[in-house]
Amino acid sequence: MLTLKTADTYLENHLQENLAELAELCAQPSVAAQNWGMEETAHLAAKMLKKRGFTVKIKETEGFPVILAERKGLSDKTILFYNHYDVQPAEPLELWDSPPFEPEQRDGKMYARGVNDDKGHFTSRLFAIDAILAQGEELPCNTKFILEGEEEIGSIHLPNFVKTHTKELAADACIWECGGVDHRGVPMQYLGLRGICYVELSVETATSDVHSGLGGSIFPNAAWRLTWALHSLKGQDERIRIPGFYDPIVPPSARDKELLSALPPVAEEYKTRYGIDHFLKGLTDGLELRTAAVFEPTCTICGLTSGYQGNGSKTVLPAKASAKVDFRLVPNQTPAQVLEQLRTHLDAEGFPDVKINFLGGGPAARTDPDDPFVKLVVDTAKEVYGVPMEISPMIGGSGPNYAFVHYLNLPVVGAGIGDPGSNAHAPNENIRLDLYLKGAQHIARILEAFGR
Amino acid sequence: MLTLKTADTYLENHLQENLAELAELCAQPSVAAQNWGMEETAHLAAKMLKKRGFTVKIKETEGFPVILAERKGLSDKTILFYNHYDVQPAEPLELWDSPPFEPEQRDGKMYARGVNDDKGHFTSRLFAIDAILAQGEELPCNTKFILEGEEEIGSIHLPNFVKTHTKELAADACIWECGGVDHRGVPMQYLGLRGICYVELSVETATSDVHSGLGGSIFPNAAWRLTWALHSLKGQDERIRIPGFYDPIVPPSARDKELLSALPPVAEEYKTRYGIDHFLKGLTDGLELRTAAVFEPTCTICGLTSGYQGNGSKTVLPAKASAKVDFRLVPNQTPAQVLEQLRTHLDAEGFPDVKINFLGGGPAARTDPDDPFVKLVVDTAKEVYGVPMEISPMIGGSGPNYAFVHYLNLPVVGAGIGDPGSNAHAPNENIRLDLYLKGAQHIARILEAFGR
Repeated sequence: MLTLKTADTYLENHLQENLAELAELCAQPSVAAQNWGMEETAHLAAKMLKKRGFTVKIKETEGFPVILAERKGLSDKTILFYNHYDVQPAEPLELWDSPPFEPEQRDGKMYARGVNDDKGHFTSRLFAIDAILAQGEELPCNTKFILEGEEEIGSIHLPNFVKTHTKELAADACIWECGGVDHRGVPMQYLGLRGICYVELSVETATSDVHSGLGGSIFPNAAWRLTWALHSLKGQDERIRIPGFYDPIVPPSARDKELLSALPPVAEEYKTRYGIDHFLKGLTDGLELRTAAVFEPTCTICGLTSGYQGNGSKTVLPAKASAKVDFRLVPNQTPAQVLEQLRTHLDAEGFPDVKINFLGGGPAARTDPDDPFVKLVVDTAKEVYGVPMEISPMIGGSGPNYAFVHYLNLPVVGAGIGDPGSNAHAPNENIRLDLYLKGAQHIARILEAFGR
Repeated sequence: MLTLKTADTYLENHLQENLAELAELCAQPSVAAQNWGMEETAHLAAKMLKKRGFTVKIKETEGFPVILAERKGLSDKTILFYNHYDVQPAEPLELWDSPPFEPEQRDGKMYARGVNDDKGHFTSRLFAIDAILAQGEELPCNTKFILEGEEEIGSIHLPNFVKTHTKELAADACIWECGGVDHRGVPMQYLGLRGICYVELSVETATSDVHSGLGGSIFPNAAWRLTWALHSLKGQDERIRIPGFYDPIVPPSARDKELLSALPPVAEEYKTRYGIDHFLKGLTDGLELRTAAVFEPTCTICGLTSGYQGNGSKTVLPAKASAKVDFRLVPNQTPAQVLEQLRTHLDAEGFPDVKINFLGGGPAARTDPDDPFVKLVVDTAKEVYGVPMEISPMIGGSGPNYAFVHYLNLPVVGAGIGDPGSNAHAPNENIRLDLYLKGAQHIARILEAFGR
């Protein structure tokens, strides 16, 4: 008979053993944006699932493979874990204190690219499963995994994969890839993700760079064209100027605002952590800041490149310029509509020469905060963390959760190992080992309670 | 007795021998912006001058050394050659057909970074001197050289060097570093250079990059700050918006317009060479295009850098962004005034956070088109090129000619080996060997006529 106490003891005693598996996974680079180590990582993750008695399939897609895994359990109910085996690029490398693909433990943390996002989350699920199987017990419920390799590049092929594999993925509830505690150490439940539409805008004005003394007064300059085109998208007032962009938006409900209002302050935490001295639009904290952070769409320049970028000066008039731009979308915006609006806008503003390359995206999706599975996850957290889990109706990040919400009709609920110092997507990505252990304990409880 | 015919024969027979010296000089990188190979190149250039019997001093400065060289001649008059031994960075390397620092002859050209700008110009002067000395003759006039190592980074220390070395540099006329034929093969005399004020604009909004899903709606974004600040400098109408920027400008004179009007069309040549399909401000060709190209100041973005610039997507909100910007100045603008106006403007537009790093510059300077030395250089060109040299009162590029015009009171006149396909400041920089020979023949004639 499965006991959580025995599971907890197992987890405490086998932490380093499991972390060794996590380190092995992190030492294997899997940068989707750079097509680096993807097949190898998929096979390594599949091997780890097989070791736990799962039936595993590595399904080819037009992009990187998707891993499907399944193991029967005692009850008829099925839980589906969504994770991804790809990671963000590690650049800028010089800002890492230890090499990003050489996992290192120090000061109660483990550092590596992907150790939080999302390899540590994946292995924490395996760790919880180990703690149950080690008791000689079957899993409490049918348990499925889906791991994709394109989350960090916009999950380009996953939604369609989900749409065409609804049978294999059929389940009653879904545990999302991430979760964790906030800056107070309180476990947080984030029930929705914004959508995203990620584009590269590029412009080419000549076949080669030109001496700026020759062309400066009379030749078109790609860097200026890009600057003006970007400026046409959003001005200093932060209002996105693309006609129709805000039209489809569904504002947060009274229940959303109630949940947001119950959340603790974040302003000082953000200021300290990121060294910023103010927030946009005069926001200070409270409901307004929190609402803006997650229920407003964005237009973010993620990168700019043109001409000479080295030391000192080079007097050159650039022939090419490009920008990476992400739009975070709120219900009911869609990437397709944003792309169309963006093209129409750029043309109307005199920028037909600015090309749009869609690099991936999907709409926002939410889970009902009053779904029973939300309650189960929230209730099981208390014993682990000692304080009640708090519910946030939406977070600012994005992911392919909409495919699980809309195509599989699942409540999608988070449970994880993260904390605000994890540096996801940044140098020195890390996990706290104490939270890693707690994350596994929480997953063990979710499986147990769900199987009852 | 010096004969030009004998000199011409010498030059024809010793071309490859001299080009081997040029290749040796080009194989030695001297990228001032990257502090690469500067001392080595200064010594190599000095060695080449000593070989011709010049008294050579390598003078230390706060930046890269300046080379001074002198050899007495038959007449009391003194000619001063200004050249520079530094070169532009070779990047982007992937666009070169042969490595930039491995000089290669093909199709009647020599390719290398700096082969035109300015090492080939320097060795073409030496080649002409060889042709005179080989006849057992003294040089027709006192001959001085000044070579600096910071031309491509704004000649930061040269003007002050000239100001404090007026005795050593005393002369009656100055041959500038460059010159050559236009797209018709007609030798051109360019009598003035615009000034330049080169700055790096940079902004930092946080201590680290942030996940764009977290901060997109509420955190300041360095890339947006930079985009907006740049937009405040110049809009799509190409008008520079810095208050007072245009105030000091001296418009072109009637004589300037007469000279510009006599010049041939350039529009089709530019369009073909650079693959551009239009000029700015509705310009097509003729006096308007030519006037705009050289008598209007500019604000050129030479480079942009921020955030993620690799393949695919990375959802990051950049903490830092910077732009390289050059302002080309016309009489009587000054870099100091532009810097002050720029700071005032950025502050007034709400960009006190945008830092200005001055990377070098100087004012414009011009030589009187009716100076007798201009006539000498123009007249001696005809026999070499077969067609009369045409006079342009001003070109769009910049250089420290103002120090020679204003501090040494010299007419500064061009004579050189360039052509519009030289790709100065761009990949595949090259010289045409036939024009290299003609350039040396012209210099020999200038020395002979000046000594009379």
